[in-house]
Amino acid sequence: MDLDVVLVEPKFGGNIGSVARVMKNFGFSDLFLVNPTEIGEEARAMASNAQNILDNVVEVDSVEELLVQFDYRVATTGIRGETSDRHIRMPYFTPRELKDKLRDKIGKIGLFFGREDYGLPNKVLKECEIIVSIPTSDEYPIMNLAQSVAILMYELSEIEKEEIRLASQKELDIIYERLSKLVNHIDYPEHKREKTNLMLKRIFGRSELTAREAHTLAGWLKALIEEKS
Amino acid sequence: MDLDVVLVEPKFGGNIGSVARVMKNFGFSDLFLVNPTEIGEEARAMASNAQNILDNVVEVDSVEELLVQFDYRVATTGIRGETSDRHIRMPYFTPRELKDKLRDKIGKIGLFFGREDYGLPNKVLKECEIIVSIPTSDEYPIMNLAQSVAILMYELSEIEKEEIRLASQKELDIIYERLSKLVNHIDYPEHKREKTNLMLKRIFGRSELTAREAHTLAGWLKALIEEKS
Repeated sequence: MDLDVVLVEPKFGGNIGSVARVMKNFGFSDLFLVNPTEIGEEARAMASNAQNILDNVVEVDSVEELLVQFDYRVATTGIRGETSDRHIRMPYFTPRELKDKLRDKIGKIGLFFGREDYGLPNKVLKECEIIVSIPTSDEYPIMNLAQSVAILMYELSEIEKEEIRLASQKELDIIYERLSKLVNHIDYPEHKREKTNLMLKRIFGRSELTAREAHTLAGWLKALIEEKS
Repeated sequence: MDLDVVLVEPKFGGNIGSVARVMKNFGFSDLFLVNPTEIGEEARAMASNAQNILDNVVEVDSVEELLVQFDYRVATTGIRGETSDRHIRMPYFTPRELKDKLRDKIGKIGLFFGREDYGLPNKVLKECEIIVSIPTSDEYPIMNLAQSVAILMYELSEIEKEEIRLASQKELDIIYERLSKLVNHIDYPEHKREKTNLMLKRIFGRSELTAREAHTLAGWLKALIEEKS
């Protein structure tokens, strides 16, 4: 996904730095700033190990010159509804719906965030093809800028959890067999043994053992059986 | 979902305030702090309209007394893998997987976050039933505390997008019929008219018109037809 982040008139350097950091956390790199506050000490501190993103920031004076650079323009808003300009914010997509919408698109995507107190100016909302809004509490819907960027980066990132090998059926069967041997050590009537075996199988079945856990568990059960014999 | 947030030894007041704000954004309210920095001016500023959450914070000296208060303890970690204590962080769930796991649970859930530089101490990781980690870039996996809380709050929140009424099939049929009338105004051969009608139906079909948009669009098309006649 070829996605750049645009902050329109950010007021606080700390937010710029935090945005840079979370972009790097999720594998994004290009940050545009429209008429921003100066990138000073606080921005540098909050960016932490994402100094390179701050170093490569592109600053422009007006949002118009940026709007034309993207194939899809996505506007973010924390205000949804009730106002007379409701129609320019509706219908909106959630971050997850946005991810689905952008998944198979080829083209340069610009994700626009407004300034901390006002949000995006109406002229930007009107230019953008897509409106996105994070579903929040009616009691306090307005989020911190850097936190809302974090949620968008999280949703739009292509980074996936690394694969963990789960135990195979064969590895699980060894465990069930050993558990069953241990159940037989107890002086239970036959029907109670069956029930206990089934319960143990259910418990270990739903815990989704990893291959590593299954290996360690099988070894421990084996040692236990040998000790009991 | 009865979920409380626990910050273990947070170093920066700004983070405590930002965490309070995002909790309120997503409808959560109970914040526990273990041996935190003082809640001062920066925390108050970053909390913005979530002062009530800061006012009701519960501070404790040791994490042990908190761990026993919850039915499910969830530990967060930004470090996944490679280290010798890998097993205490594995297997982990993503925030989305955690949501699925907690969905049908009844009980008090504690979501534990570690301090900005170290993360959670191993003793907490060992006590918790569930480990959660946000999939991030290998190049820079460690997130800002308040941003990682934001992503968990977003995923675990029960708040959903308000419903938007989409146009009904009947409302869409009026639009297609009027578009078709306009196509007939052009001097096209019959097969080209058919193709154009189909294309227009496809375009408006996939744009998922809201009822409001359909109403406005139908009115505009009607005016256009009357003007052309």
